Amino acid sequence: MTLLVKDIISYLIPPAEAIHHTVDTLKFGNENTPITGIAVTFMPTYEAIERTIEQHANLLICHEGLFYKHLDDPLPIHDKVYQAKKQRIKETNLNIFRLHDHIHRIEPDQITYGLITKLEWQPYIIEHKTESSIVSLPKQSLYQVITDLKDKLNLSHVRYTGDLNQSCQRIGLFVGYRGGSHQTLSLINQYNLDLVICGEGPEWETPEYIRDARYIGENRGLIVIGHMESEEPGMRAVAQQLSEAFQEVPVFFIRNKTALSMI
Amino acid sequence: MTLLVKDIISYLIPPAEAIHHTVDTLKFGNENTPITGIAVTFMPTYEAIERTIEQHANLLICHEGLFYKHLDDPLPIHDKVYQAKKQRIKETNLNIFRLHDHIHRIEPDQITYGLITKLEWQPYIIEHKTESSIVSLPKQSLYQVITDLKDKLNLSHVRYTGDLNQSCQRIGLFVGYRGGSHQTLSLINQYNLDLVICGEGPEWETPEYIRDARYIGENRGLIVIGHMESEEPGMRAVAQQLSEAFQEVPVFFIRNKTALSMI
Repeated sequence: MTLLVKDIISYLIPPAEAIHHTVDTLKFGNENTPITGIAVTFMPTYEAIERTIEQHANLLICHEGLFYKHLDDPLPIHDKVYQAKKQRIKETNLNIFRLHDHIHRIEPDQITYGLITKLEWQPYIIEHKTESSIVSLPKQSLYQVITDLKDKLNLSHVRYTGDLNQSCQRIGLFVGYRGGSHQTLSLINQYNLDLVICGEGPEWETPEYIRDARYIGENRGLIVIGHMESEEPGMRAVAQQLSEAFQEVPVFFIRNKTALSMI
Repeated sequence: MTLLVKDIISYLIPPAEAIHHTVDTLKFGNENTPITGIAVTFMPTYEAIERTIEQHANLLICHEGLFYKHLDDPLPIHDKVYQAKKQRIKETNLNIFRLHDHIHRIEPDQITYGLITKLEWQPYIIEHKTESSIVSLPKQSLYQVITDLKDKLNLSHVRYTGDLNQSCQRIGLFVGYRGGSHQTLSLINQYNLDLVICGEGPEWETPEYIRDARYIGENRGLIVIGHMESEEPGMRAVAQQLSEAFQEVPVFFIRNKTALSMI
């Protein structure tokens, strides 16, 4: 039986679970196209598209958008980079499907769970919330947690606020752009969190809250690991699931380089 | 003549220039209070409040909000840090005025202009736009620009994307949280910018645009210096102006530590 693009979409998002008003759509291509290979990535960069084509795959599954913003409307239609990327996708007949909303809405959130798995923190889960998960680790210093994160996620650096010697046990994980105070504050209070780990968030929100909390003697810390760095493990898990479910086609994962280097 | 809080507010925002729907309000205190001293800062941290009180000043002028978000409504009223900070402000009768919208709306934006002045780039200004300024520097490498920024702004690190050897001349400055693609893309195109310098912005927007632009051979780069780091010079200039205009009271500037350290 020939595997079609729509078979993969139905596997990723069973029709009964389909969401209205979602960015999870086939951005380019045709759902009746027979699949030659599947690439999965976090960010569908121009380079990721070229690597997909080089590997003779014709379906790219990505978490973030193609054109430098979350929503597809309006697109930067007068921009040369947009035009070149769109033309390259069209001339190669690549199928591109975005998997964002649904994977975050599965319970537990499979992007968060992918990070937990990569960190080998499944034994320490306390509770899964809608936009975060709470874990309770064996007590260790903030420095030890940072070292562990850098090691397991292969990070060159992280940003943080807190005292590297402070003790960390109760930790809230907020992947992607969930580092805002409306997401973190209530859970810091509810679970008396020692540490928040997030992908990214506004600098004037949670970092400033943690700074003030520490000033009045509370034991709080924050590690900002990067948006891609926090969500890539969940997309890597998708590639693994697809490779097991569809052994008749090659499936591979494309890792993005970090969006911002440090100097 | 006794100097009152309202005299300073009228100096900062002449009544004829007052904006409706603004965060620029007296958050605590009473505008008829006689002033004993004025502190100016970017972020009104708990520590900045204590330093204001230690210096026997009773008016703190700040750019960002007190309680970890841009707008005052809703406030995290059940949070212990919020409660402690609010109580401390009330018991010390500190007057706190936020200066945000008006200073950004002066033409040219005085927060952006403060950064330009600190960088000594006034001779190179091409144009002031609503949310950015365009400069044309003598040609230099991205590495040279980064070194210059770190030196003049006293930064321990910056985040960037691009090739450190690439040539930079036409530069767009986007202070604060103006690093989003809806702010940067049209100006990158219009001015053929080699380099964007911003405070902060979503990682999936401008950094990914620059990455793709470079992939197809365009000469683009991005430096993310931090929100506070990009806006503090403009607030420091306010302290300088006040100290010249009101020599009868002490005026001082409180520098914040960086919100996020790097490791």
